[in-house]
Amino acid sequence: MKNIRVLLASRPVGLPTRETWNIETVGQAGPDDGEFLVELEYLSVDPAMRGWIMDRKSYMEPVEIGAVMRAGGVGHIIESRHPDFAVGDCVVGTSGMQKYWISNGKGVVKVDPALVPLQKYLGVLGMPGMTAYFGIQDVGKIRAGDTVLVSGAAGAVGSLVGQIAKIKGCRVIGIAGGEDKCRYLTEELGFDAAIDYKSEPLFPAVHGYCPQGIDVYFDNVGGEALDVALAQLRLNARVVLCGAISQYNATGPVKGPENYLSLLVNRATMQGFIVFDFAAEYPKAAREMGQWLAAGRIKAREHIVEGLETFPETLLMLFDGRNQGKLIIKV
Amino acid sequence: MKNIRVLLASRPVGLPTRETWNIETVGQAGPDDGEFLVELEYLSVDPAMRGWIMDRKSYMEPVEIGAVMRAGGVGHIIESRHPDFAVGDCVVGTSGMQKYWISNGKGVVKVDPALVPLQKYLGVLGMPGMTAYFGIQDVGKIRAGDTVLVSGAAGAVGSLVGQIAKIKGCRVIGIAGGEDKCRYLTEELGFDAAIDYKSEPLFPAVHGYCPQGIDVYFDNVGGEALDVALAQLRLNARVVLCGAISQYNATGPVKGPENYLSLLVNRATMQGFIVFDFAAEYPKAAREMGQWLAAGRIKAREHIVEGLETFPETLLMLFDGRNQGKLIIKV
Repeated sequence: MKNIRVLLASRPVGLPTRETWNIETVGQAGPDDGEFLVELEYLSVDPAMRGWIMDRKSYMEPVEIGAVMRAGGVGHIIESRHPDFAVGDCVVGTSGMQKYWISNGKGVVKVDPALVPLQKYLGVLGMPGMTAYFGIQDVGKIRAGDTVLVSGAAGAVGSLVGQIAKIKGCRVIGIAGGEDKCRYLTEELGFDAAIDYKSEPLFPAVHGYCPQGIDVYFDNVGGEALDVALAQLRLNARVVLCGAISQYNATGPVKGPENYLSLLVNRATMQGFIVFDFAAEYPKAAREMGQWLAAGRIKAREHIVEGLETFPETLLMLFDGRNQGKLIIKV
Repeated sequence: MKNIRVLLASRPVGLPTRETWNIETVGQAGPDDGEFLVELEYLSVDPAMRGWIMDRKSYMEPVEIGAVMRAGGVGHIIESRHPDFAVGDCVVGTSGMQKYWISNGKGVVKVDPALVPLQKYLGVLGMPGMTAYFGIQDVGKIRAGDTVLVSGAAGAVGSLVGQIAKIKGCRVIGIAGGEDKCRYLTEELGFDAAIDYKSEPLFPAVHGYCPQGIDVYFDNVGGEALDVALAQLRLNARVVLCGAISQYNATGPVKGPENYLSLLVNRATMQGFIVFDFAAEYPKAAREMGQWLAAGRIKAREHIVEGLETFPETLLMLFDGRNQGKLIIKV
């Protein structure tokens, strides 16, 4: 049995390239005592990956050169020497970007493929879903009536942030790139408005849709969107820092938010978070998200690309916004 | 009787100049019914003034061209037609930068010159004191054992922030400009360390004194100090935005903090505040600050310049750091 796996070959400057990665086929051993072997079916491709391959202190250790690229994956167990995991069980965890995965069960969660298609456990019921759930509620502290602005609004996290805020009685405006995505937000997901940053200047558009200002800004992109939002905060506004995809491939310094003093004038808060800090509450959140999903109150789509070997190119889709929904590789 | 007053003549680009101001001598009328007339003795010169004369939305209306410059002042009542204020009462309030002040009593507080010298009511027992008290405790949420970094540490607010943090059991490092100020911090005020930003590179100095990172950064200056602090935050750190004196006279865009994504990685919070929001609690705070002052647990010095007509030049001392302590004009 042969494993296919994506290794980090070198640390990129700017956008990752084909040279960043090394894809190899190697013999796959079986599990030891206390381990099980998973055949992975879907692998998650996330903006956070750009941070994981940088050589600097962050919320996780960097992926080492020569190591299998860190990734979330879902699949089924084909061999087990672990008392709590049986052949046939479907599991999700940090599998790495590969076809087969040997695990000792730590941090691995069993999931039910009868409830929702397996790939949903990498999206709406996985890390992006948890990120949206806790980010907008626990960090953003939304209240009914709030005006909520979300960037990266058609993405895996942003689309759920907006829908959760709608369920909670907020007015929601999304920023996304392209007419299709914007139409998706307003016509399919129930956003109150969507701004196409590729075709209209952001400042007047945000002002037009948020004439009273912004109570909560959920930032996935950084850069200009963050500055525009900061300039239009209301008193006691909350800025949730989830990501900064516009800056991840910067070769010069990151663009700091020039308008940060708006936080002072408006007694506002800018707060970062990492979804792992909420791990203890994932089961409760996944239950509620599952109910909303089943009831049609939230929608989530996946953008599935076939083939592990496409990873170097697939990853780049995130940075030019070509994906429509949660980006996933089908092994 | 003649009043001398400082009017805003034009809005400066960059540093205010002599042309920014118009100093005039005019006849002074007496108070109407429900008013009283104050002869001002001390007037406060504050970094916030630079913001008040800009023509843009902020936490207060801008000072209008031709209006008396907004300023805090303290003095004694020399004529009264107000039932609650008597001749001889000492009062503090937003008097404007002038010699005589007619007030209807709104927002005016009576103070006792027997307790502390009158000028202290513009510093440690006035707005800077309240700013430090609520900023470091209510916004910074200091806890015993925290490592606290303060910029503008020898200034009216910063020097009190550091001393309050020491009373509360924190380790306190101050950033100030010049050897004298740094010695004052460590030898007189009990700071654990002081960094002279004019003579040593900030990043390694902060790292050296805060090897485990910073729990609370109290920012009075913005610019490089903010970036250096952000880069060295601990998990769940708090950044208190009180001011950004290094940016107030910028003619180009404000320098945004490039390292703001450290807030994300470290689940940290950056929060602005305006002291006026705590007005309801001033009496309690002033009582406690007064006790600390009387007990010698906090020290505060004033830098007093004589003559209202020096205001245009005196204000500039704040921006090149020439003042040693709370800057005050003696009328």
